[in-house]
Amino acid sequence: MFDSVTIIGVGLISGSFSLALKENGLAKNIIGVSRTQASIDKALELGLIDEALPLEEAVKKSDLIYVAIPVDATVPMMRKIMDLINDKQIVADAGSTKNVLCKNLENHPMRKRFVATHPMWGTEYSGPEAAVHGAFAGRICVICEKEKSDEDAVNTMESIYKKLGMNIAYMNADSHDMHAAYVSHISHITSFALANTVLEKEKEEDAIFELAGGGFESTVRLAKSSPSMWLPVFKQNRENILDVLNEHIVQLRKFKSCLEKENYEYLQELMEHANEIKRILK
Amino acid sequence: MFDSVTIIGVGLISGSFSLALKENGLAKNIIGVSRTQASIDKALELGLIDEALPLEEAVKKSDLIYVAIPVDATVPMMRKIMDLINDKQIVADAGSTKNVLCKNLENHPMRKRFVATHPMWGTEYSGPEAAVHGAFAGRICVICEKEKSDEDAVNTMESIYKKLGMNIAYMNADSHDMHAAYVSHISHITSFALANTVLEKEKEEDAIFELAGGGFESTVRLAKSSPSMWLPVFKQNRENILDVLNEHIVQLRKFKSCLEKENYEYLQELMEHANEIKRILK
Repeated sequence: MFDSVTIIGVGLISGSFSLALKENGLAKNIIGVSRTQASIDKALELGLIDEALPLEEAVKKSDLIYVAIPVDATVPMMRKIMDLINDKQIVADAGSTKNVLCKNLENHPMRKRFVATHPMWGTEYSGPEAAVHGAFAGRICVICEKEKSDEDAVNTMESIYKKLGMNIAYMNADSHDMHAAYVSHISHITSFALANTVLEKEKEEDAIFELAGGGFESTVRLAKSSPSMWLPVFKQNRENILDVLNEHIVQLRKFKSCLEKENYEYLQELMEHANEIKRILK
Repeated sequence: MFDSVTIIGVGLISGSFSLALKENGLAKNIIGVSRTQASIDKALELGLIDEALPLEEAVKKSDLIYVAIPVDATVPMMRKIMDLINDKQIVADAGSTKNVLCKNLENHPMRKRFVATHPMWGTEYSGPEAAVHGAFAGRICVICEKEKSDEDAVNTMESIYKKLGMNIAYMNADSHDMHAAYVSHISHITSFALANTVLEKEKEEDAIFELAGGGFESTVRLAKSSPSMWLPVFKQNRENILDVLNEHIVQLRKFKSCLEKENYEYLQELMEHANEIKRILK
């Protein structure tokens, strides 16, 4: 059990992480750091954190510093933290991209105290109010560049995530970002675009509201996601996302062309092929 | 309460409808009609139906005949049924398209005994095993061309759907098909295409399996849907779907162009605009 853990950012991921640490008896005291006073107040009120401190003070007091803020802000924040820590402390991030961050920290003298982690869980909501009990369970947590971190630091992070019910996968940062583009980032792009499609075409908003059944709602759910969280992800993983997005437009054009030419045989084939996703998803 | 109701097709919708009728004490005896003996056997075993009969016999015995089969098969089936009924019986369908069917039945002498309904509920599964208790509740049921049906027939269907917990919306068949393209059919196309995208690009299937979090799964869930159910919908609603699909490709290209040109200001705007879907979906 940690005496003190600092979470940088007090939102969906860090807040849920904090609740999970408490529930599993993994931390006595949790310190919150955020630039936004309203978020701090909310986090205290919701019991996500025990106290709020300025960054430097919080870091000095903590065994573990856990960073879950937008990925562009993570890079300078992580450097600042790693300039402050000693070689007993552990720093980990929870970001959706890994390449830019890992490259940036590559030569930092404290690199070995940093563990690059991506717990693959989330919802479309953000802020302290979005934090939930029982998050992370049953999902995968990717740990990148394991070999560049001290063994004790990796083992500690692993055992925390395992206590939270996660399974661990190891990858290099390149592979992580490529796979994340396929199985997460593209879903966000398509949801945002689908929301815009429907908002553009469907002028009678009452009709969307009334008619949108479960199918539409689940496809478009991610369009509610926070731009300030996802824009930096799209920036950092731009090339992989463009690659998948180009392929997705090609695939959509096949459906379009089948409908235009009334080539229903091929349309049927496309749908049957898509059904193969059943093999992969339960 | 009906003495006898016939369901044509014994799958997701008809099976769930049948369970709901029973649970709400709306039917004493439910007769199943299906071309597939295995489906009949399964429906009997699951208690979805009380007996199975050939079409003609079933129709003659029933107060209500409820048709929930692929929309292309619905057209000739409905004509066959309407040739058999008297002016006390009611026929209703549950199809995802309404224009082709309503036009086709327009001049049938028994048109007034037919109620065109679309209960907007479903899952990605099909067949008798997909039938569930408590379906339909909280969703909208669209009734089309109300004025072309006898008042008693409309009132009966309305009161059934209301007992199942549905809210009723009235539309002409054209409007229904257009709105359905926006809020349901396009979601299926994008899910099918997204599944194909990921299957195409992501050769390491283990990675999809391991990493695919909730976001991906909800976006791609509809790709598991039955082609034999959806192909006829896409055929019948081809023009509306092409219209929305073209717009969707335009919207995706905007995201693509922003990423290519690193125009992050506009990308942010696109995402913020998409967030407006929150106003509409809870």
